[in-house]
Amino acid sequence: MLFAPSRAPDRAGVLRAADKIAAILPPTPLLPLEFDGGTIWCKAECLQPVGAFKIRGAWHRLSDLSQEERGRGVVGVSSGNHAQGVAWAAKRLGIAATIVMPSDAPQVKLAATRALGADVVLYDRMTQSREEIAGQICEQTGATLVHAFADPWIIEGQGTVGVELDEQMRARAGGSPYKIILPCGGGGLTAGVALACPDAAIIPVEPEGWDDVAQSLASGEIVPVGEGPPPTACDALQTLSTQPVNFAVLKERCGFGLSVTPAEVRAAQRLVFSRLHLVVEPGGAAALAAVLAGKVELEDRTAVVLSGGNTDPAAFARVIETGD
Amino acid sequence: MLFAPSRAPDRAGVLRAADKIAAILPPTPLLPLEFDGGTIWCKAECLQPVGAFKIRGAWHRLSDLSQEERGRGVVGVSSGNHAQGVAWAAKRLGIAATIVMPSDAPQVKLAATRALGADVVLYDRMTQSREEIAGQICEQTGATLVHAFADPWIIEGQGTVGVELDEQMRARAGGSPYKIILPCGGGGLTAGVALACPDAAIIPVEPEGWDDVAQSLASGEIVPVGEGPPPTACDALQTLSTQPVNFAVLKERCGFGLSVTPAEVRAAQRLVFSRLHLVVEPGGAAALAAVLAGKVELEDRTAVVLSGGNTDPAAFARVIETGD
Repeated sequence: MLFAPSRAPDRAGVLRAADKIAAILPPTPLLPLEFDGGTIWCKAECLQPVGAFKIRGAWHRLSDLSQEERGRGVVGVSSGNHAQGVAWAAKRLGIAATIVMPSDAPQVKLAATRALGADVVLYDRMTQSREEIAGQICEQTGATLVHAFADPWIIEGQGTVGVELDEQMRARAGGSPYKIILPCGGGGLTAGVALACPDAAIIPVEPEGWDDVAQSLASGEIVPVGEGPPPTACDALQTLSTQPVNFAVLKERCGFGLSVTPAEVRAAQRLVFSRLHLVVEPGGAAALAAVLAGKVELEDRTAVVLSGGNTDPAAFARVIETGD
Repeated sequence: MLFAPSRAPDRAGVLRAADKIAAILPPTPLLPLEFDGGTIWCKAECLQPVGAFKIRGAWHRLSDLSQEERGRGVVGVSSGNHAQGVAWAAKRLGIAATIVMPSDAPQVKLAATRALGADVVLYDRMTQSREEIAGQICEQTGATLVHAFADPWIIEGQGTVGVELDEQMRARAGGSPYKIILPCGGGGLTAGVALACPDAAIIPVEPEGWDDVAQSLASGEIVPVGEGPPPTACDALQTLSTQPVNFAVLKERCGFGLSVTPAEVRAAQRLVFSRLHLVVEPGGAAALAAVLAGKVELEDRTAVVLSGGNTDPAAFARVIETGD
């Protein structure tokens, strides 16, 4: 089976990944945002070279491949941020990368992935299975599949966000985070940060209608997104189902999940624009949106991850111009 | 005379300021931007709490005031970024602040300055002298004038950008910067960074028609902006003349100055949006604009300062939507 991982991710793997990441990328800033009498600490992953945290997992995964595996190439499936992460790591390591991307992915993400030298194969998000397409390429070429979230290396790599966040919070706010709120698609970032920060409350946030992780947590077993989910600007979080390797961590560590509306996401993007001077894509603003909407109690040492910033200029212009 | 500083700024003062700043603010990131086969290292000062480097000089100045001076308050003159810097430092130190601001300053800057608790006094940029207005307030109240650039503490404080930049460049690019290009209004930031980085080439960049520093460098003496300068979106760089305390440093260290057109500035803002995911105001993008326009040779260890990010949403939306 394509996505049956060979092992479970663990905290030691996260810490090993953190050493590897620290050798090539400086920590992203943890920026304080004053709100409602308190401070929301914002981990600015949109400042990564590819504009998203996905570079972390991709680097951990690809740099652990053997020389023989590297020679056969890698295949990624992604709406764009994981695509760029894999393409970036592959380019740096001299590995050929093929990325299977939905045809409705933002133009900036398609263009950026191609600019990093990857071969992009498009599919229709609603009628085709990206897993099947990726599986066929792997069978034909012997390439290694680098799943966007259902992979222990990817989970551990994304968890390095939590390692940095914990160090920064201790230095600047006197202790480890009590609560970390994260944008959640398949649950790679959320599971990784849960492993990295064993004492923090971990809260995943999904777009309205795409809250399969929240539903899964509520029912205790994996529940995919229902038929005909609504359109969402949060392309980075449009996953139809979490996977067992992720859910095994999530169900241990997350009591519940939250969802946010399109208007709540836009409000968060606008506040980040005006107060932090950062460009955050819709999916990247989901966790902050939940806090601003009052869906999470803001206590001391509360952090949100601003997970990515890859958005089309016209779309971003509409968001900051409208006041809804 | 109002702006006759009591002393010259010096490198020891910059280093002392750097220790004070490091105690309250983490370094802003130095982000690599690949361009034309090379790397432009971008110092992201738009990520400061008030959205601009001005917080540095204001903190160095106000924290050095005696208890008696603090009790009499401070007066700042500014189009908005220095205003917020002074208001931020004053609030933190419990000092009353009055800020003299032009009536055409961006709404976001006026609102943010008031939100920090400062008393804002408006003036007409073309018909009134902000220096006179500020001088009257100081005479009436005994408050300390905190000039936006013609002040040794302000210059030293802004110079801490250079201290951080040098450390980051050595850690990430193997040595100190060869060349630093900076947005330049009155020359506070440029003079400060020149003191901080004695071995780097220092290049100030001004908006077209507002290039009094470039003209002054060319003629060897201070030349104010000519009659009827053109409108510019770079409100942060709209100073009519540099001052002796700044020019004394600039003429020693800068061979020449550059100017950039409105279209060049917009192109830089757009590239920063799409590639670095930062919001930079027009004046904050001037130095990068000069590099992108080919006005500066891009060599190893070249850095630009992205000095601020306070821009109205509607104005920023227009910039990123248009492709001129």
